[in-house]
Amino acid sequence: MKTYGVIMAGGGGTRFWPLSRKETPKQLLNLSGNNFMVNEAIERLSRVATYKDIFVVTNALQKNKLMQIIDKRIKPDHVLVESAARNTAPCIGYAAIEIMKKYGDGIMVITPSDAYIRDSETFANILRVAIKTVRDTDKLVTIGITPTCPSTAYGYIKYEESAEEVKKVLRFVEKPNLKLAKKYCKSGNFVWNSGIFVWKASTILQKYKEFLPDVYACLEQLADAFGHDDEKEIIENIYPLIPSISVDYGIMEKCDDIMVVPGEFGWNDVGSWDTFGALHEPDDNGNVALGNVITFDTANSTILSSGRLVSVIGVKDLVVVETPDAILVCAKEKAQDVKKVVDALKKEGREELL
Amino acid sequence: MKTYGVIMAGGGGTRFWPLSRKETPKQLLNLSGNNFMVNEAIERLSRVATYKDIFVVTNALQKNKLMQIIDKRIKPDHVLVESAARNTAPCIGYAAIEIMKKYGDGIMVITPSDAYIRDSETFANILRVAIKTVRDTDKLVTIGITPTCPSTAYGYIKYEESAEEVKKVLRFVEKPNLKLAKKYCKSGNFVWNSGIFVWKASTILQKYKEFLPDVYACLEQLADAFGHDDEKEIIENIYPLIPSISVDYGIMEKCDDIMVVPGEFGWNDVGSWDTFGALHEPDDNGNVALGNVITFDTANSTILSSGRLVSVIGVKDLVVVETPDAILVCAKEKAQDVKKVVDALKKEGREELL
Repeated sequence: MKTYGVIMAGGGGTRFWPLSRKETPKQLLNLSGNNFMVNEAIERLSRVATYKDIFVVTNALQKNKLMQIIDKRIKPDHVLVESAARNTAPCIGYAAIEIMKKYGDGIMVITPSDAYIRDSETFANILRVAIKTVRDTDKLVTIGITPTCPSTAYGYIKYEESAEEVKKVLRFVEKPNLKLAKKYCKSGNFVWNSGIFVWKASTILQKYKEFLPDVYACLEQLADAFGHDDEKEIIENIYPLIPSISVDYGIMEKCDDIMVVPGEFGWNDVGSWDTFGALHEPDDNGNVALGNVITFDTANSTILSSGRLVSVIGVKDLVVVETPDAILVCAKEKAQDVKKVVDALKKEGREELL
Repeated sequence: MKTYGVIMAGGGGTRFWPLSRKETPKQLLNLSGNNFMVNEAIERLSRVATYKDIFVVTNALQKNKLMQIIDKRIKPDHVLVESAARNTAPCIGYAAIEIMKKYGDGIMVITPSDAYIRDSETFANILRVAIKTVRDTDKLVTIGITPTCPSTAYGYIKYEESAEEVKKVLRFVEKPNLKLAKKYCKSGNFVWNSGIFVWKASTILQKYKEFLPDVYACLEQLADAFGHDDEKEIIENIYPLIPSISVDYGIMEKCDDIMVVPGEFGWNDVGSWDTFGALHEPDDNGNVALGNVITFDTANSTILSSGRLVSVIGVKDLVVVETPDAILVCAKEKAQDVKKVVDALKKEGREELL
């Protein structure tokens, strides 16, 4: 049975402003210095699926930019466009039914496009274990990240201890407070929820039918449009009608028999500016300074220039990001509050800065 | 005897980078939000001298910019150009000999152009007291700023206590360390040296002849060029030959009979970014935010945007200055270190940023 790669690249996200914008979200940026994030995700999946079997789901606003930068080995008709943001269940469902109806059942390896993974081959091995599990058991499998700290930024997965590499999921838990996070990490049988899934297209669609009938009904309508001359327009019109829901809430938390493969592969979701520094080797002062930057007496800071000189004196634990039309100066510990700036701009109708 | 105003506007200065540049030093900036600093200096002097009796000394690099913004009531031939930076003694000497030879002896009121004065009329009254003293006694008079704190940034003047408004200077002292500064302030008979002088042109020229004969000889050469067709070129060639020295070292510290008028008029030399905030009313968070700025959880900071959005989150006591080609992010307490950035740019030959 064939393995298909599916990259979810339709997300918006505001915590990476001002670098990320509506039309250029994080996944369409080159943050590591090597390649655009979405292409790095494609490269990783190419180790378990061929390029012609990899799909990328994007969103209407970002499609043009994506097509400019996407790895040219991805077939244009394998770029699926969401005409509205509807969270992960519709996104995955769309890919599943596209695969099922147009190409035939197969094992889907679904990943986000905006996380950084340092050890690609270790990751590929973890995926291979998950793929084999799906092939052998037809279960829903997810990848869990072995925690490196009691992070409060991720959902966690509790699993049943066993000697096996692939564990049974006991339950999914919400992003915890620090106290709980420490407890989870101490337990030893908790992993971070990575948003990476491996399952058969037919199996997941069955689950949608059972647990998300409204979504499933919409997916069937999408499928009815396949092969029509105006397939694109029809899908564009149907898509916003799909209920918005995450696959975690909609499916994972309702199913009994989910498996998780814990792994360590230098994963960083680069969720906000305070974690960006992990993608680069800091200098002797703990600074990550990229581009046209001069510093004095500055430590543990992340400083990005997109072109103009950025000079930083006498600070620590600061994020400074310069873009052509906006500058951010933010204490690392307040990185989550970048959202407040974005909300303020939205409220003021300053779309050109978003 | 006529009163002439003389504004020393030829200075460079690097502590105000990136706002000030070689061609646009502090005095040619509008920092208060009202008018360019040099024009604010002109306005103050216009309270004791007529516009047609006010001279502005500039430097060759800045002349064009000055002429674009200078108060149009200043006569173009009253703008004197230094073809090289030679500190205050040559600058003042040039103005003195220009006045003496071309217009006739008079009382010179000499001020820098890059200090902020909040209470212009109080200042004018102090000047009037100084002018009267010169008229009556023909002494050299300087204005002293009543200290508002034990600043280590200024030279101090010790004076003889008396009931008179005009005091006898006992001695000039260098910029002190904090311990000394506190001692001076506690004594009660010390003022900051403001760099503001009042004296007759003939008197000061006599002092130059006595104490700075080399400078005086050059001034005589400048005067020889007056009225020639190529007066400007001749002066341009002579000027760099004048020994560079401050009027404080060259004259003031050598003379016996100097008077000082202490005053309080909301003076701020705006010497570096940490003092800039004093020119504006801070908001409830102690921030001075000018232009296109958004802040959250930020206090006691100075944030200037020249155009692009500057968003600041979670910091305090910070200076953030955005200009079209350079951004500065600097802890207020390290404001003096802006010079290090300027030196680094010079060293790298990055003239366009200076």
